[in-house]
Amino acid sequence: MSRVYNFSAGPAMLPEAVLQEAANEMLDYKGSGMSVMEMSHRSSTFESIIQTAEQDLRDLVGIPDTYEVLFLQGGASQQFAMVPMNLMKNRKADYLITGAWAKKAASEAKKYGDVKILGSSEADTFTHLPDLSDLAVRDDADYVYICENNTIYGTKYHTLPDTKGKDLVADVSSCFLSEPLDITQYGMLFAGAQKNIGPAGVVIAVVRKDLIREDVLAGTPTMLQYKIHADNKSLYNTPPAYGIYICGKVFRWLKDMGGLEAMQTANQAKAKLLYDYLDQSKLFRGTVAKEDRSLMNVPFVTGNADLDKAFVAAAKAEGLLELKGHRSVGGMRASIYNAMPLAGVEKLVAFMAAFEKENL
Amino acid sequence: MSRVYNFSAGPAMLPEAVLQEAANEMLDYKGSGMSVMEMSHRSSTFESIIQTAEQDLRDLVGIPDTYEVLFLQGGASQQFAMVPMNLMKNRKADYLITGAWAKKAASEAKKYGDVKILGSSEADTFTHLPDLSDLAVRDDADYVYICENNTIYGTKYHTLPDTKGKDLVADVSSCFLSEPLDITQYGMLFAGAQKNIGPAGVVIAVVRKDLIREDVLAGTPTMLQYKIHADNKSLYNTPPAYGIYICGKVFRWLKDMGGLEAMQTANQAKAKLLYDYLDQSKLFRGTVAKEDRSLMNVPFVTGNADLDKAFVAAAKAEGLLELKGHRSVGGMRASIYNAMPLAGVEKLVAFMAAFEKENL
Repeated sequence: MSRVYNFSAGPAMLPEAVLQEAANEMLDYKGSGMSVMEMSHRSSTFESIIQTAEQDLRDLVGIPDTYEVLFLQGGASQQFAMVPMNLMKNRKADYLITGAWAKKAASEAKKYGDVKILGSSEADTFTHLPDLSDLAVRDDADYVYICENNTIYGTKYHTLPDTKGKDLVADVSSCFLSEPLDITQYGMLFAGAQKNIGPAGVVIAVVRKDLIREDVLAGTPTMLQYKIHADNKSLYNTPPAYGIYICGKVFRWLKDMGGLEAMQTANQAKAKLLYDYLDQSKLFRGTVAKEDRSLMNVPFVTGNADLDKAFVAAAKAEGLLELKGHRSVGGMRASIYNAMPLAGVEKLVAFMAAFEKENL
Repeated sequence: MSRVYNFSAGPAMLPEAVLQEAANEMLDYKGSGMSVMEMSHRSSTFESIIQTAEQDLRDLVGIPDTYEVLFLQGGASQQFAMVPMNLMKNRKADYLITGAWAKKAASEAKKYGDVKILGSSEADTFTHLPDLSDLAVRDDADYVYICENNTIYGTKYHTLPDTKGKDLVADVSSCFLSEPLDITQYGMLFAGAQKNIGPAGVVIAVVRKDLIREDVLAGTPTMLQYKIHADNKSLYNTPPAYGIYICGKVFRWLKDMGGLEAMQTANQAKAKLLYDYLDQSKLFRGTVAKEDRSLMNVPFVTGNADLDKAFVAAAKAEGLLELKGHRSVGGMRASIYNAMPLAGVEKLVAFMAAFEKENL
C-alpha cells in the first residue's frame, strides 16, 4: 500500500491513524460483534460514540453550555436555507460576499427575506476580502453572514468583521479546527465535515441556544429546524452514524496531537513553507492578497495555462494529487488541512522548485 | 473477532463480505493511495463509483431511463417534506396511514397542502393494513402516499393499492431490494439506506422523470428540489460519498447472490421459519394479521412484559442482539433483512424453542 499526498479541497485527507482504527473496527467495534455502520442509533454503544464526539469537540474548541452542538446532514448547502429559515425574525439579513459559497448562501436567503450585501470582492475575482472597516449593518438585521475561509479562492478573515452588535453567522467549513477560535464571537457557525473533520455527509452546527426558536418561518420542514435536532440531541431521526463516528475519532486525534493551538502551529509552519516559496519563485505566484491568505487553501499559477496543466500532471506522477485549481479560477490549489503532514508540503515545495528549474 | 446476529430494525446488518472489502480498502482504494472518504467527489474515480452504483441498482430492480435514481441525504424524514414540496401541483394529496412513519409523512405534508386520509389502522395499533378495496382517492389529488413496509408494526402491502390512476408515492425504506418490484407501478419511491442498502445518511429516491418539476412550491430550499439533484446526477454538492460507495458494494453483492429473485426466495425461507414457529408456539405469538405480515420485520410477544424482557436479555447473551420491540409496541421484533443469514434465523428459532420449553 502506498499512500499519496492528497491536496484535494474536500473531501480531503484524513489522519492515517484514524483510518487504520476504522479499518480495524470495521467488522467488530470494540467487541460489540458489529460494525458501527450496522449499529442501532438508539443503542447505548452509539449513544456513547455521539456523546463522546460532542464532548471532545466542546473540549477542543471551548464550547460552553450556552451553545448547542448539532450533527446534521445536507452539507453547507442545506445550511444556506436553514440559516434564514431558522434565524430570520425580521426577515432581514446582511451578507458579505467573498466567493461562490457566500454568494450561493445569499442567493438562497433571498427566497426567505430581504438580503443586503454589505460588501463584495467579486469584481476582483475574490482575490481579497472586501473593505470591512465600517460595515453598514442594518439596525434590524437578524444576523450578519460570512464565509470565513474561502476554499476556492484561498482567502480567510483573519479578523472577524465588526457586526455592530448583530449576531455573526459563519460558514467555517474549510477552516474549522485548523486553529483556536472564540465561539462567543459567533451567533452560530457551521462546517461541512469533509475538509478538517471527517467524511462528507455530516455537517456540524454550533448555535447559541437563544437563537434556537420554535417560531421558524412558515413552511420550514421539520428536518430543517435546529430546535428539532437540539431537542433530540441530533437523534431526531437516524443520523449519519458512521460519519459521526469518524468525526469522533478525528476529535480524539486532535486532542492527542495537542489540540487546536498545536494544529495552528503546525498549519502555520506548513503554510509559511509554501507561501515563502511562492513569494520568491520566478515561475509560480500566489493569487491572493497577502493579508487575506488562507492557512488551508493555497491557490497559485504560473500564468501559462499549458504549463499549469503540465505541472499538475507531473506532480500527480510524484504522488502529489489533486493540485488542479477550481474550474472557476484555474491554475493550481494546494489544500493543506490538518491531516496533511508537513512532509507532504515539503515534498510539494521541493517538487515545485525542481519544476521551476526545468521550466524557467 | 466474533460477529453477532443483529436483529436491529436499522441501522442493520450488512453483508460481511462488503464490510471486509471496505476494511481492506480503507487506506487505499484500488491503488488510488487514498480512502474513498478522502476522495474528491469530482474525481473520475468517485464518478465511476457512483455511476456503477446507479447502474447496478438499475439492473437489479429493472429501472428504465424514464426514472431518475437520486442519492440524497436527510433520511426518509426529509422526504416527508420533499415529496409534497416537489410533487404537490394542486396542493392536494391522499395518504394511507399504516404506522408512525406514514402518520409523520402525512402530518408534514399538511404544512404544504390539503391532505386527505384515505384509510388508517391506527385504532388497531396498526396490526393490519386498512381496507384497500375501494379507496376514495380525490380526482385532483397530486399523488397517493403509502409506507409499503411498516418497520415498527411488521406489516407490508403485498398488493399495491388501486390509486384510481393517481401516482403512487411509496416509502419503501424497510422493504426495498428484499424482493422484485415493478417500478412502473410507482410515480416515485424512496428508501433510507440503513435497512437493506447501506449505512445511514444515504437516501435513494427513484422518481419518474415527468414528475420532476421546476415549479416546486415557493420557499423550497434548493437542496430539497429533486430537479437540482437530477440535473446534477446527485453531485450538486458533496454527496455522502462513503455511504454511496458502501451502497454500491451492497448492490454488487446482491447481483453476486443472484439478484432480487434470489433474495426473495431466501427472505421467504427465513420468514417462513420464524412465522411457522410462532404459529405453533404456546409461549410466543406474532402480533400482525397473517395476510399483512412483513418479510422483513417480525414482531412477537409472550403477553408478559417481564418474560419479554427476560427473553431479550437471554437472547443477547447468546449473540442474538437487538430483539427488543419498538418502544411504542413493546415485546420483541426480529428484523431479518437481506444480510441476515438463514443461520441467524435458525439460531433464533432454536433459542426461542428452548426458551419456550423452560418457561411454559
